[in-house]
Amino acid sequence: MDERIHTVPDDARIRQRVMNAVSTVRESTPLAQSFTNFVTINLVANAQLAAGGTAAMSYLPDDIIDTAQVARASYINVGTLLPFYADALDQITAYFHTASHPWVLDPVAAGIGSTRTRILSSFRENPPTVVRANASEVIALASIWGLDVPSTTPAADDASTDDSEADTADDAPAAPTKPAGVEAVDDVDSSQAAAIAIARFLRATAPNHRAAVAVSGPVDLITDGDQVFRLFGGDAMMTKITGAGCALGGVTATYLAVCDPLVAALSAGLLFNRASEAAATSSSGPGSFQTAFLDALWNADARDVAMGNMTAASAQQTHPVVETVL
Amino acid sequence: MDERIHTVPDDARIRQRVMNAVSTVRESTPLAQSFTNFVTINLVANAQLAAGGTAAMSYLPDDIIDTAQVARASYINVGTLLPFYADALDQITAYFHTASHPWVLDPVAAGIGSTRTRILSSFRENPPTVVRANASEVIALASIWGLDVPSTTPAADDASTDDSEADTADDAPAAPTKPAGVEAVDDVDSSQAAAIAIARFLRATAPNHRAAVAVSGPVDLITDGDQVFRLFGGDAMMTKITGAGCALGGVTATYLAVCDPLVAALSAGLLFNRASEAAATSSSGPGSFQTAFLDALWNADARDVAMGNMTAASAQQTHPVVETVL
Amino acid sequence: MDERIHTVPDDARIRQRVMNAVSTVRESTPLAQSFTNFVTINLVANAQLAAGGTAAMSYLPDDIIDTAQVARASYINVGTLLPFYADALDQITAYFHTASHPWVLDPVAAGIGSTRTRILSSFRENPPTVVRANASEVIALASIWGLDVPSTTPAADDASTDDSEADTADDAPAAPTKPAGVEAVDDVDSSQAAAIAIARFLRATAPNHRAAVAVSGPVDLITDGDQVFRLFGGDAMMTKITGAGCALGGVTATYLAVCDPLVAALSAGLLFNRASEAAATSSSGPGSFQTAFLDALWNADARDVAMGNMTAASAQQTHPVVETVL
Repeated sequence: MDERIHTVPDDARIRQRVMNAVSTVRESTPLAQSFTNFVTINLVANAQLAAGGTAAMSYLPDDIIDTAQVARASYINVGTLLPFYADALDQITAYFHTASHPWVLDPVAAGIGSTRTRILSSFRENPPTVVRANASEVIALASIWGLDVPSTTPAADDASTDDSEADTADDAPAAPTKPAGVEAVDDVDSSQAAAIAIARFLRATAPNHRAAVAVSGPVDLITDGDQVFRLFGGDAMMTKITGAGCALGGVTATYLAVCDPLVAALSAGLLFNRASEAAATSSSGPGSFQTAFLDALWNADARDVAMGNMTAASAQQTHPVVETVL
Repeated sequence: MDERIHTVPDDARIRQRVMNAVSTVRESTPLAQSFTNFVTINLVANAQLAAGGTAAMSYLPDDIIDTAQVARASYINVGTLLPFYADALDQITAYFHTASHPWVLDPVAAGIGSTRTRILSSFRENPPTVVRANASEVIALASIWGLDVPSTTPAADDASTDDSEADTADDAPAAPTKPAGVEAVDDVDSSQAAAIAIARFLRATAPNHRAAVAVSGPVDLITDGDQVFRLFGGDAMMTKITGAGCALGGVTATYLAVCDPLVAALSAGLLFNRASEAAATSSSGPGSFQTAFLDALWNADARDVAMGNMTAASAQQTHPVVETVL
Repeated sequence: MDERIHTVPDDARIRQRVMNAVSTVRESTPLAQSFTNFVTINLVANAQLAAGGTAAMSYLPDDIIDTAQVARASYINVGTLLPFYADALDQITAYFHTASHPWVLDPVAAGIGSTRTRILSSFRENPPTVVRANASEVIALASIWGLDVPSTTPAADDASTDDSEADTADDAPAAPTKPAGVEAVDDVDSSQAAAIAIARFLRATAPNHRAAVAVSGPVDLITDGDQVFRLFGGDAMMTKITGAGCALGGVTATYLAVCDPLVAALSAGLLFNRASEAAATSSSGPGSFQTAFLDALWNADARDVAMGNMTAASAQQTHPVVETVL
């Protein structure tokens, strides 16, 4: 990586749009519905409520298609699959596609299990508007969809050939803000090409041709295929409660109900970073952290959220568009 | 509405019966089983335990019918439907009907989705003992069951023709206690005729011909078809955690294991109001509110619960029984 | 019971092994996967994370068999059964058996429902490595499996013929530490013969011929068929949150990923006792207790856990092996 990565200025338009999204959700309490796993379904709903939205959870196509008439965005998470999901999700995503209904996909555990692979594969025909995942899932999803992922950029290659963490730290990108966890930056970085490829693929079918991919990690990477944002901050305790990623996906859908995919992904990521930092200061373990995190989602100041630590870079420089992905 | 609505005196027999129910549950830890949605199943169980009861959750008819031998009441909530539920609920409710086993229905999202409508419709043959719902669900359920709901009362008509919230507040009922949220009172009021119609319908088939309907809102409306109670109080943060209504339905089933339907509905409603008020004073967001709410369910004084802010009116005056509902 | 029961000395090798297991989990964050009920699935995952492990939850055989390649132990809990579980669990446990994959069974509600009985019965062919249950479930499981459970031992007979709690207390084992709840000791004691019979049955098929049974109660009984350990301590508030037993089963699987079955069961039991005692001192009801309990799982000192109040006795004296169980 290099100096093309720059800190997003406080007065950047993108920060204003994030602040507006955070405020608009609180004012309009939009409904985003979810088809999500049983482990973290409660946290997803509570996080959506704490962010200011409202929640509805369903598994039957007739239920979800009816609710999509009133919900402005949906969230699909492929954890804890049941046998009937393949058919149900096929009907649901076909409807979303026909209706240009925006939705967020969380490809939990992409690559594990033939049923999950079959389901994720089918989404290629009726793609989501936003993908929210960890680095491994993003790489697996790009592979399942058969996307043309360019070999890693020179900068990423440098990092991946470092043979010690200390070296990696020394060679770390000269980003204006030093990330807290170097391994994770490298990890998320290793998915950058896949994330950009997915974002460009999604744009081709998305409503208004806008889409985004958010890769979660100690440093989050968010791209719409043109620009690559990195969010620094947050707290590692987020990995010690189950469902932080799922909740982030659900809240991304909440924002997607009021703004475009890129701003939705950035708003959710920045809100979570801010809230997890606040929770870390007032908790003494994962139980009190989760409680404090929900409180902090509720209480976070919209301007503080928008001013979170964030860099931007052009995806074109590292991943020039040389052919149509589709 | 008018002066026929009166505050329930502190020494009213109904308050004594509520206090007894709250105490009896704590002393006898009755089992109430649940067939409920995946979003809030944990909160339902924890709320039942915190109220003093015990909990068991199942989805298979053989499981539920076996457990009904030892549980004195059950709770059915139609959120997060799965494909096999229609058949399972048919068998379960038919058994409850044959066995005169009392149960609480939570018709979550009544009116949305053809599967849900089919399931709720089938309950007309094997009806619950108590319905616990919000105003929209109560109105939808009365419609699904084809009940004869008289056109709204003059008082309610007045409210519904108000074209601004401010006007509505000015025209609000001269109830002895001013409710905190006027819109919600009107909303719950708009379901009064449906609630009374459902209660009278349920009585015709219920064990001992006793039944109740509880409509949740900022002011709760509870009726057995003869009397209409309104519970004032509680805290608006209850709408910012998922499952407050589901938990109320589950705890109503816990009380139904030890007392009659009207007292069960009132006890659960008064307990939740008391506990949510206590939780509001010791929390700083939805996360700590939920934690404090469970603590408050556990710690609430039975007498304080029974003395909650409550009015009563005769349903006969506004909704005379002019024909048999069935 | 009698003087053959002795306190486990502080420098006993078994305590050192518990301390190592607690530390090893925290250092190596092992993955244990779960097939578990919907009520407490979130708490199971969060408890596994708080103990230091990682979690994955699934229901499809292809998912679980794939994940078993990377998880070193699994947990199966038969609460909230769905219709497809019988077939799925048959495939899953057959795979575990073939692969010698260690797993913990939580036979929730054993004896209730024909589907559950059929599922539990099928596990006789592909048995778990550890059973974690309450006394009634252990007795029911031994019966479902048709195990030869010797009539209760003289010591247990003495206890069971006591006709008052006070008498029972007077006749209680001369254990160095007086248990808090006498009924529960007797209750767990009443399952001792069944627990030993199950442990000996499991050993015959278990990887390395090692297995354990953990009976939860105010005093926990843990046996590998040779020795019987009793864990004193913990807090009664654990029975006022839903899922304490399920979480214990899940964390037992987490330990089973790094140590043998007996040490896994002891480590989980001792950790839970320590954490529940800590939580009791800093909570004011079941809501704050659960939060504090997760914090305490995370913060518990490994040495404090290993030094928990524990007695041991030889199972051979009371239950001599006179025939092969299989």
